[in-house]
Parts: sequence; structure tokens; C-alpha cells
Amino acid sequence: MDWHIEDYQDELIKVRRYLHMHPELSFKEEQTKRYIADYLENLGIEVKRDIGGNGVVGVIKGKLAGPTVAFRADFDALPIQDAKNVPYKSTVEGVMHACGHDAHTAMLLITAKILTAHSDKIRGTIVLIHQHAEEVIPGGARAMIDDGVLESVDYVFGTHTASYLPTGTIAFCPGPAYANADSFTLHIRGKGGHGAAPHETHDAIIAASGLITQFQTIISRSVNPTATGVITIGEFNAGDAFNVIAEHAHLSGTVRTYAQEVKEQIKTRMRQLIKAVEVGYEVEVTLDYIDGYPALVNPHTETAWLKQKVEQAGYAAEVRIQPPSLGGEDFSYFLQERPGTYFYTGVMNDEKDAAYPHHHPNFDIDEVGMLYGVKTFLTIVEHMAELSNRID
Amino acid sequence: MDWHIEDYQDELIKVRRYLHMHPELSFKEEQTKRYIADYLENLGIEVKRDIGGNGVVGVIKGKLAGPTVAFRADFDALPIQDAKNVPYKSTVEGVMHACGHDAHTAMLLITAKILTAHSDKIRGTIVLIHQHAEEVIPGGARAMIDDGVLESVDYVFGTHTASYLPTGTIAFCPGPAYANADSFTLHIRGKGGHGAAPHETHDAIIAASGLITQFQTIISRSVNPTATGVITIGEFNAGDAFNVIAEHAHLSGTVRTYAQEVKEQIKTRMRQLIKAVEVGYEVEVTLDYIDGYPALVNPHTETAWLKQKVEQAGYAAEVRIQPPSLGGEDFSYFLQERPGTYFYTGVMNDEKDAAYPHHHPNFDIDEVGMLYGVKTFLTIVEHMAELSNRID
Amino acid sequence: MDWHIEDYQDELIKVRRYLHMHPELSFKEEQTKRYIADYLENLGIEVKRDIGGNGVVGVIKGKLAGPTVAFRADFDALPIQDAKNVPYKSTVEGVMHACGHDAHTAMLLITAKILTAHSDKIRGTIVLIHQHAEEVIPGGARAMIDDGVLESVDYVFGTHTASYLPTGTIAFCPGPAYANADSFTLHIRGKGGHGAAPHETHDAIIAASGLITQFQTIISRSVNPTATGVITIGEFNAGDAFNVIAEHAHLSGTVRTYAQEVKEQIKTRMRQLIKAVEVGYEVEVTLDYIDGYPALVNPHTETAWLKQKVEQAGYAAEVRIQPPSLGGEDFSYFLQERPGTYFYTGVMNDEKDAAYPHHHPNFDIDEVGMLYGVKTFLTIVEHMAELSNRID
Amino acid sequence: MDWHIEDYQDELIKVRRYLHMHPELSFKEEQTKRYIADYLENLGIEVKRDIGGNGVVGVIKGKLAGPTVAFRADFDALPIQDAKNVPYKSTVEGVMHACGHDAHTAMLLITAKILTAHSDKIRGTIVLIHQHAEEVIPGGARAMIDDGVLESVDYVFGTHTASYLPTGTIAFCPGPAYANADSFTLHIRGKGGHGAAPHETHDAIIAASGLITQFQTIISRSVNPTATGVITIGEFNAGDAFNVIAEHAHLSGTVRTYAQEVKEQIKTRMRQLIKAVEVGYEVEVTLDYIDGYPALVNPHTETAWLKQKVEQAGYAAEVRIQPPSLGGEDFSYFLQERPGTYFYTGVMNDEKDAAYPHHHPNFDIDEVGMLYGVKTFLTIVEHMAELSNRID
Repeated sequence: MDWHIEDYQDELIKVRRYLHMHPELSFKEEQTKRYIADYLENLGIEVKRDIGGNGVVGVIKGKLAGPTVAFRADFDALPIQDAKNVPYKSTVEGVMHACGHDAHTAMLLITAKILTAHSDKIRGTIVLIHQHAEEVIPGGARAMIDDGVLESVDYVFGTHTASYLPTGTIAFCPGPAYANADSFTLHIRGKGGHGAAPHETHDAIIAASGLITQFQTIISRSVNPTATGVITIGEFNAGDAFNVIAEHAHLSGTVRTYAQEVKEQIKTRMRQLIKAVEVGYEVEVTLDYIDGYPALVNPHTETAWLKQKVEQAGYAAEVRIQPPSLGGEDFSYFLQERPGTYFYTGVMNDEKDAAYPHHHPNFDIDEVGMLYGVKTFLTIVEHMAELSNRID
Repeated sequence: MDWHIEDYQDELIKVRRYLHMHPELSFKEEQTKRYIADYLENLGIEVKRDIGGNGVVGVIKGKLAGPTVAFRADFDALPIQDAKNVPYKSTVEGVMHACGHDAHTAMLLITAKILTAHSDKIRGTIVLIHQHAEEVIPGGARAMIDDGVLESVDYVFGTHTASYLPTGTIAFCPGPAYANADSFTLHIRGKGGHGAAPHETHDAIIAASGLITQFQTIISRSVNPTATGVITIGEFNAGDAFNVIAEHAHLSGTVRTYAQEVKEQIKTRMRQLIKAVEVGYEVEVTLDYIDGYPALVNPHTETAWLKQKVEQAGYAAEVRIQPPSLGGEDFSYFLQERPGTYFYTGVMNDEKDAAYPHHHPNFDIDEVGMLYGVKTFLTIVEHMAELSNRID
Repeated sequence: MDWHIEDYQDELIKVRRYLHMHPELSFKEEQTKRYIADYLENLGIEVKRDIGGNGVVGVIKGKLAGPTVAFRADFDALPIQDAKNVPYKSTVEGVMHACGHDAHTAMLLITAKILTAHSDKIRGTIVLIHQHAEEVIPGGARAMIDDGVLESVDYVFGTHTASYLPTGTIAFCPGPAYANADSFTLHIRGKGGHGAAPHETHDAIIAASGLITQFQTIISRSVNPTATGVITIGEFNAGDAFNVIAEHAHLSGTVRTYAQEVKEQIKTRMRQLIKAVEVGYEVEVTLDYIDGYPALVNPHTETAWLKQKVEQAGYAAEVRIQPPSLGGEDFSYFLQERPGTYFYTGVMNDEKDAAYPHHHPNFDIDEVGMLYGVKTFLTIVEHMAELSNRID
Repeated sequence: MDWHIEDYQDELIKVRRYLHMHPELSFKEEQTKRYIADYLENLGIEVKRDIGGNGVVGVIKGKLAGPTVAFRADFDALPIQDAKNVPYKSTVEGVMHACGHDAHTAMLLITAKILTAHSDKIRGTIVLIHQHAEEVIPGGARAMIDDGVLESVDYVFGTHTASYLPTGTIAFCPGPAYANADSFTLHIRGKGGHGAAPHETHDAIIAASGLITQFQTIISRSVNPTATGVITIGEFNAGDAFNVIAEHAHLSGTVRTYAQEVKEQIKTRMRQLIKAVEVGYEVEVTLDYIDGYPALVNPHTETAWLKQKVEQAGYAAEVRIQPPSLGGEDFSYFLQERPGTYFYTGVMNDEKDAAYPHHHPNFDIDEVGMLYGVKTFLTIVEHMAELSNRID
């Protein structure tokens, strides 16, 4: 099909820049949600507002029979001060689209606009899921699902911009792609005292150091060597004076896994070793374990299917397999409910100073890269018939 | 000999209260040193000012031949806010005689006054060493010695008030009485990074925890079990975020020993284990080790001698052996140079609310207890002849 | 093609049982190598003896043009006492085919026999690699390759029986399938002494325990969490008496990895931590690290290709993806040189008491399962043309 | 008093040599006990046989009124093969007086003989305690006391030969002189498995290494730095193969302390850390803790008293203060019941090849040294009157 995508490049960039200049923090996306909803309504698309919070949902019904496929784009920004020197720099102090969610949104809005111009050729239904609050737990995905956004949806697809993949690249990651990204704090309470009288104390620093040393065995001995598990203690703060034995130690850290059973195993072992330190060192340990998003696992079948379609379509300069990340992403909730895949859209371009890591104050994208994301969404639409067959 | 000590009780208390109301920090004892020097000169005693800094030295020559014996009292105060509600409360904001050095000074001044009234009966010479700056390293003792204060001195004695011993008690500690009280800081520099990518980092918290764990073997395996050694890590600060692997860890701590060889052995083993952690974890470790005062070791002979004399004199309600402390005290420098002993003068009295630990904001003494310190100094003077014999 | 495989079942079993009754240890396979070579020569196949040691190579040239494909079977046995009560029990005391190499050999000999009966239909050349000494490092594979066995070979395939997969199952493992399976011994020499005088010793047990504790950080922190690494200390022997501090500690263990870079990284970190323990505990540590076979990595392309062919052929009751093993297998050397794959042939059958683990004294196979291995080799031969195309 | 001790030197040596040639193991001293009892009876001394087992007690009543003082000598030998080449070498294969108990016995028998010749001058009563079984727990001392040997005894004295003190030396150790010398075994039961599958096991070596590492904190943090405590793990045996994770680990070790409260504290902390390892590593740990003899604490008063008497008597070439040992000695039970002291009798003489450590196969004594032990016992008898006064 010829969608004349290049005709929409200017608007794609315009929309992205508008969003880039007006970022809003997670769960506070008041203007953004209105902007999206209005944009879709102006296209004549049926819109549902305030789905699961600030979520916006649009529905495009094709003239031909076919499956229902959802496309998801997230639209919240980060508490980072924009350090770029560009006309479309963030206008909000301390808030910035430093992860590319502005681009995700722009790609989906333009995809919608193109589709509305070709609805007679569309088999089935496209559900546009504009999700708020991906950056902050508990995220918007779970709430939008609970609010019914996936009802009658057969497949769900989404994309993340990648400032480490050159413009023109579309990448896939079959299987685990993002991790269970959990966090925790540990407070160890011993009994303080004079530094020269350890026998009258229960030294919180000794207990905490011992606990950290023992946590290493969870990864080295308890996790299946062919599975993935990480425990990092990122913060350790204890004691007020060189000659006073610390009564308290405060630790914080993160646990990363792909498999739920590995995650549960790590939690169990952490609790065992914490209990052990309590018993062994006469201290009290409080663990506050915060579950992050579940691991995002791309189904092999749909991932291979879309990869093949993109390759056959031939527009991508490169189609790549991407190694998994140990970061978190709440698109995982959608894939827990429906088949589909989460692909990567390259937006790196050294010449345009667009190669900073995501979440960096200088983060920027090569806007041309967005066209390939749009093309990929449209490629899915072109093959709705096949998806339909696969369901039956 | 009858010294009529009780006649001086009022002045003893008056002097102590004056000093208590006008405390000065270590190395800043401008008024105090003048007060002491003037007091001694008014007694007709030959005074040397500004010895080794703010030190004051008086000399009382007896009419009869005999040895030269030095008595030492320190006179600096602490950066503590006086919390007592008494007429003689400190008049200086945030500065307080919370360790009893005011009493040490008063006892020695009154001892001097009594001696001047009986100089015809004195065998030998009494050197009054009023020492500044005991509380802060490097202390005043070393400097006063370097300035010649012990030249021609045969013996040196001193006392410390003890708010944990009842008034009327004189106590002794033969052998090690105070510790080598050293301090150190450790800075561990690794390589930080994302909490989910430990393999790209050199985790400073892991290295520091490992170092602390291994330091335990210094005490448990390298120090002679019949000797004394303590290593305490009092502070551990590392990391800024739960999901970022720490690049830096800052530790501080203290080392306590009695024997110099044990101290040196601990330092050697610390350096070996630090080197080990550098090699084993690819981190850089900086150790800043600060030597405190040397251990104070009371010679058995002089300690037993004075204890016997006090017992025979019969004025003390109790004469006691005191267990050693792991704190520090720069009277140790005097005992490195000359025989003598450092005894304890009880000033505890629950009824007078005088039982708080030294360095406590409510610290106070039972002033009557000072009389027993004065008596003990005079007891030494009474037996100068014996000291003389012992030298020959 | 119809190969009439079932007609050969009796001979397949007869050959396997003959071999099972006459097992020979690795590098000592004198009778076995003769038996194989004679068998092939009797079929009229050109045979090369004593390749790389006891290896035997046969070559079957097809009438039609095509690629050269090698099939490999290993034929050494294990130092295990056969505990089965069957007529074909091992006749050699303490030696047993407890890993199924007898079956591997029988399958390849029968495959050869079938092929000689249909040489006019064969495209290309079949090289029969009968390899000695798989069970003992350095194995026979490397030596046979060095002796030229792969010259002019385009592809190489092999199979391992699996007593954990039911008869009728053919399984594949794309990517890493067997590990770098290395071993090591550690000797720690400290300084012994009386149990009550640790300060006069360098305690080997303390050093060894510390080393083991620190080794855990290699896996937990230095290996990429998405990669695989195992360090196991299997033996720890130190000390002769409860009240004597040990001078020596002897450890042994194994390291398992898939990626060469992970293996090298683990070795580097082991050496760093060993050095650290030497420096930190004043001991001497000797590491003897023995490289095992390299990891066996099945190429995705050929593995997927053969899996598809087997599925299409339809003879297998089940075609399965098998999770990787952390054991070792020197077929890896062949796959380092040529494309191909190493598949699994199910021989489990509870009713025939054939479900013991490999290397178990009661190990046995369901001999019917061998037929599926033969079929798979023949399936490869049927599709030689395709392999040919793939090379070009 | 003039005891004409030198006249008895030949017999002293003869008795010692007889005993040296006929050593008997602890609790099996059949001939020795008869020899001693007969010897005493031949002197006309009232003898009680089989006291608390193989113990022998003789009583010498002086003509003059006075206190009852017991002298103790132990008489068991060791399971050591005598390696000396001397006429009086042990005649019993594998049994040897390698700790000097033969000399202890000879000294006491000769002391008895001398005393019987001067009974008219003796004030009070001398009880001769010939104790069996000092070398093996539970020892003979406790049983002899339970059998009434100390009834009516006022003081108890004993001596140990010292092959590290020159002949002519008498040494004293006021306060703690021998330790609580306990032993223990630890059995850790985990769950074994393949070396490449740690996640299916509970690794006993990891648990044991962790336990040992944590035991270090007992000494470094839980024991008062001015007290003495040692925990040594002398044996660590675990695992059978480099590639199999160990199910069992067997450890043994010793605990040494002087103070009962420190001993109890160490046991409590060991149990806490054992419980911790059970909880933290899912293993079962069995501790078998065997109490050794209690610490031997020489009372300061009696020790100083006897030291002064020996110095005044002037026969000893040197009178010395001896540092405490961390070994065990069941004379401690006597000193738990009665005042007295345990002194050391020097028997070292390089020229006579008598300088090997106790328990060495070449151990021997300078027999002349025994005379000084006898003299010391007699010195006590000379001052019985003083002891009498001290009691009142």
C-alpha cells in the first residue's frame, strides 16, 4: 500500500516539538492528555478520555472485516532539566521529555492521521492507546487495562525510540526484553556504643556488611546459572562519628530479573539471609521491597512475524535483533494480556547531536527516525488479514 | 605531717568554681594560663609562662635535700554546652569544663599554696606542671616536655577526677591504663554505573563491605589473644541512588591498643588487607591513619608504692585498683620519660547530682572529693626521702 | 526416500550390544577401533585408521554431485562398574558404556550400511567420523581435526543419546548447548601453629574461607547478568587436628561458562582474588586451572534447518527444543570449524528400565530409540542438495 | 630449717627414672598407683588408695599444731613414642612421660620422704595428692575432690616442670595461668548436587566458609577487648569431587578463654551464628561442644606470698613471673575449692639435651631441676605458721 508517509514528515516533527516544549510529569499530564484527545477528535476519531487516569483511547474502524489491533504510545516526561540549546527546548523548568515519549506520541498521532485517510482499505480495527505515567510506579498501563482498554483487542504493539540505534533501524527482541525492575530499602537497627567497647554493642555496620557479603551467594549459588538475576546495593549510610559504633544502617538497592520464579526465589533468599543476620548479630532488619513493573516478554511468534514483514517491506536500513535490557517498562502489562511485540525505532544520529543516552539532560532524537516507526505501525495494518488468520 | 588541709577547702572550691565559670578550649587558654601563673606568683612561687605553648610551670624548692618531683594538672575545656543549673555554671556559650580539668587545676594550685606554707619541711623540689590542651591532638604534654619541663625532674605524678568513683576514693591502675587511641579514614574509589550492569563497574560498596569483613580477622587471628586490640568502623557512607552502583565509599574508624607492637601490627595488617582489596576488586583505597596519644602505662613499682602510702595514711575511704580504659590521655608522654603514676580521685556523689559521665552536658563533681587528691599529692611530698633512696 | 530402516533394527541392536559388552576406556580403545574399521571395510567403504590417535574415518561417495557432510560418533567408555542384570552386560570389570557411546557408534555404522545400499541416490559425500576418547581431556576430536578429518568437509552433524527424552524424540538446542567445562585445584599454604596462638600463624582455613566468600562476587558482580557463569568449589580439605592451625588447604572445583569472554573474565577475576588473598593473609596460593572442552554452540541456521526437516519428515513422535546443558562435549571442536548441529536422540523408556541418568551404574537405553537417530542422519542425506545450495 | 635435700638427689633421680621407664596412659595407671602407694606406706605414711579412681592420697601429720596443706602431683603419661636414646627410655611401646608427670611424682615422693624424717618440726598436716589422669578429659582432679580429698585441707599447692625455664628457676603466674580449653566439632549438612547446578543444592562448603568468616566477629566484636578469647577451626573437610557440590562439611576446632563469662558468651554467639547459617543457607548444623578443664586462676595473695618466701630463701637461681598459657590443666579444680598456687619448676638444660617442648618425642628434663621443686614444697612447710595466721 502506498501511504504517502513522507507527506506527513513536517507535521510529525511539529507535533513532536510541541510536546517536547510542553512536557508534564507522570500522573500530571493535564495539557498533554487534552492535546492528544483534541488532535484525535479533530481527525474524526472516536475518543475516550481519562481512561485509567490520564489515558486517552482512540478507535479507528476499518471498512473491511478483520482483527482488532492496539498500538500504544506513552506520553509522560521526566524530572530532568533540559540542557539542550535548540528552539524546541523544554519550556518547563526541571521537566523534560528525556526518554522520547514525545516521539512515541507523535508517531502514533501521525499514524492515526494517515489511517483516517485510508480507512476504506483497513481490515479490522485499530485501537490507539495513549498511555500516561510510564516512568513512575505503578504506571498507567495497569490502570488502563483495568479500565477495559484491551477488551475486544486481539493484538497489541508498541515501540520505544532508541538513541543507541541509527535512524532507519528497526530492532526486535524476542523473549525477555525488559526486566522485573524492583527496588528495596533495608534498615538495620543494632545497638550503638563507644567505639572502644564493641562487646557492649550490636554493630549495625558489621551486620550490614555481612548481609551484603552474603547476598552475593543468592546470585552465585541460588539463581539458575542460565537465568538472569541482579541484586545491587546502591546506597549504604551508617554512623555519625569515627569513634562511635553505629546503631543504624540504611541501605537501598534494586533487584532485576526476567523470570517471575527467579524474582520470587531472590526475595525468598533475601528474607532468609535477613533473618539470618537478625539471629546471628542480634539486630533488627526491616525490608521494604517494592515490586516494579513485571518483565516484558516479547512472544516469539509475533516478534518473528513482524520482523519478517519489516524485512520484506524493505524500508528499514537495518532490521536487527536487540539484546535484552535489564530496565523496566510497563508495556509488559499489555503483553501479559495479549500477543504482540514491543519493537525499537532507531533515532540516533551523531551529526544531529542525537546520541545521548535516554534520561540524559542532553538527550535528543533524529526526528527523521520517527518515520520508520510510523511505517512499522502501518506495516502491521497492511497485514491485518494475516493476523486475523492466525487468530482462528 | 599535719598540713591543715581542711582549712583550704573553701578556697579549693572557690578556685574550681572560678575556672568552671570561665572555661577555654584547647590551645586557646589565654585567661586560664594567666590566672594560674598569677595565682602561683602571688604565692611567691617562681613561675615560667608559655612553656610549650600555653603551659605554666611553677617550682617550689624545699629547704631539705631531696629529689625533684613533678605534679601535673591539665586546664583546657571542651566544646560542650553546660546544661547544669548551678550558680557556677559556665559563662561561655558552648564551652564547658565537662571533664574535670578545672578540678585538676584547683587541686594543684591549693597543693602549691599549702606547700608554700610548709617549705621548711619539704625534702627536695616540687615542679608544678600546669598543662594546656589535653583534649585535642597533638596535646600540650609533648610540647611542654620538648620545652624542657622534665629537665632535672626525677618523678612525675598526676591525677584524673573520676565521676564513677565515690568521693573519698583514690584508685590506681598498674600497667596499661589508657590506650593508644588512633583514628583513620578510608576512601574507596571504584567505578560506578547502572545498578543492573554490575559487570561494567567496580562496586565500591562490595569492596568496602569485603574490607570490613576481612578487618575482623586482624583482631581474631593476628593480635595475640592475651593482648588488646580494637578496630571499629564508625561511619560508612556510599552511594546516591538505589539503582546506581556506588563509585565511592567513605569510611572512618578508630583503633585502640595498649602495646605499641600490637598497634604497629594492626596497621600493617590493615595495609595488607587494603592492598588486597585494591588488587581483588580493582578499586583504589586511600587510608589516612592518625596516631593519637600513646598508651599510658603506669609503672608497677611507683604505682604500688603510692598505693601503699595512701593506704597507710588512712585518709581515703577506699583505695581501689581500677581496670584500664581504652580512652586516650597525654599524661602518657610524661610517663614515657619519667617514673611515677597517674591516679584517680573519686568525685562521684549521687546526692549532689554528681554522677554523670565525663563529657556529658550535665557533668559535675562533688567538690569535697578534691580534698583527697590534694592529700595524695601531699602524701607524696611526705615521702620524698623514700623516693630519693629509690633513685640511688 | 525409502531406506527400509526397520529392516536393520536387529543388526543395529546386535552391534550396540556387542559394543556394550566390550567397553574400552578413553585412549585405550584398541578392540573397538578395529571392530569399527573392519565393519566399515566389510561394507566396502574406504577407511582410514588411527586418525588423531584411535580415530577411524570412513568415506562414502555418492554418485551425484553434492556437498561433503560429516557424521560423528564417539566410542569410548567409562570407568564405572556395570550394575545392570542383562545378557549384554559389560564383560569388562569396572568399565562400562554408561553414556551411550556404544549406541552412537551403532547408529553410525548402521547408517553407513544403509547408505552403501543406496549410494546411487546420494548427492555428495558422507564422511563417517568415529571418534575415540570423548570422556577424557584433551579428547579425540581436536586430534582428529588436527589430523585433517575435516578437510573438504562442508558440514558436520552428530547426536547424543538422551536417557531423559522418551524414545521417538529428536531434540535440538540452538545456540549454546554445552559449556566450557573447566576444572581447577587450589593449594593454599599458610603457616601452621598451635590453635591457641593464631597470631603466630597464617591460618590457611581462614584464607581459604575468605577466598571462597570472595569468589562469589565474581559471579554476582563481574559476570554480565545475562550471561552464564558458575564457579563451584567441590572439595575443601585442610587441617589434621582440632587444636592445630592448618598450614595447608586443598580446594578443587569447576568453572562453567558458554562465552569464551566470560570464561576469560572469570579466570582473570579468580587470579586477582587469589593475589588479594596472598597479599591480605600472607599465604601462598597455587592455582592449577585446566581448560576443558570449549563450549558447544549450535549454529541457529543449521539447527533450525534440520529441525524443520525432521518435523516435515514426520517420523519423530516429538521434536523438541532442549535447554542447554552446563556439561562439556568435544563435538564443540567440530562446530568451531564447520557449520552443522548436535542433536539429541531420545532413548528413555521406563518400561524397559531405561531412565537412569548418564554415568549411572544402571544406565541403559531403549534400543528402539536408536532408529530415530539413524533416520535423522538419513534425513540429512536426503536434503544434501539444499545444503549444497546454502553453501553457494 | 636444714632438710639436707641434696642427700636425696640420687633417690629423686632413681624414682623419676623408674617412673619414666614404666609410663601408663591416663585412667590406666595400675602399676604407677601401686608404686606410689607402696612407696608412701614404706615411709610409714597413712595411705588411701583408689581415691576418685586411680588417685592415691597420703597424710603426714606434724607434731605441732598448724594448718592442713595439700601438695598435688599428677602421674599419667602420654600416647607418644619415646624417641630419646637414654638408659631410662620408656619401656612401653607408644607410651611416654613426655610432659614431666614422672618428675612431679618423684618430687612429691621425695618431699614426703624428707618430711617423714622431720615430722617433729612440722606445724600442721601435709596431704599428698597423687593424681591420675590429668592429660585426658574429664581428668582425675574433679573425681578426687568429689571423693573428699580436700576435706579439712586449707591450702593446695602444685608445680609443673617447665622445659622452657632453666634449671634453678622457680616461676609464678598470678591470676589466670591456664585457659578454659574447650573443643568442638561442627557438622554441616546441606544438599549436594552437580557442580554446574548450584541452584538445585544447598552448598555445604559455602555455608561452612560463611560460618567461619562470621565466627571471626565473635572475637573481634563480642568479646571484651581487654579479655581473652580464641576460636580456631583446625579442620575443614568437605566434598569428594571437584565437580560435585558438597552435601557435608566437617569442621573441628577449639575455644580458649580465661573468664567463664567470656566462654559462655562465645558459646552463645557460636550458637547464634550457627542458627543464622541454618536459616540463611538452608542447611542443618550440628555442634558438639566439649567443655575442657576450667581456667586455672592463681590467687594473687598466695602466689605473691610463696614468691616472696622463695626469693627470701634464696636457693633459686631465678624467681620469675611467667606469662599465662592458653593450654589447659585440671589443677584448676583444686584452686576453685581452696587457696594456693601452681608454680613452675625449671628443668631446661641445653647441655643435657633437655630443652624440647613438652609432648615432644624427645622431651627430657634436667633432673637436677627437680631439687628446686622439692625445696619449694619444703619452703611452704617451713612457713606453715604464717599460713595458719592468714586463715584466722
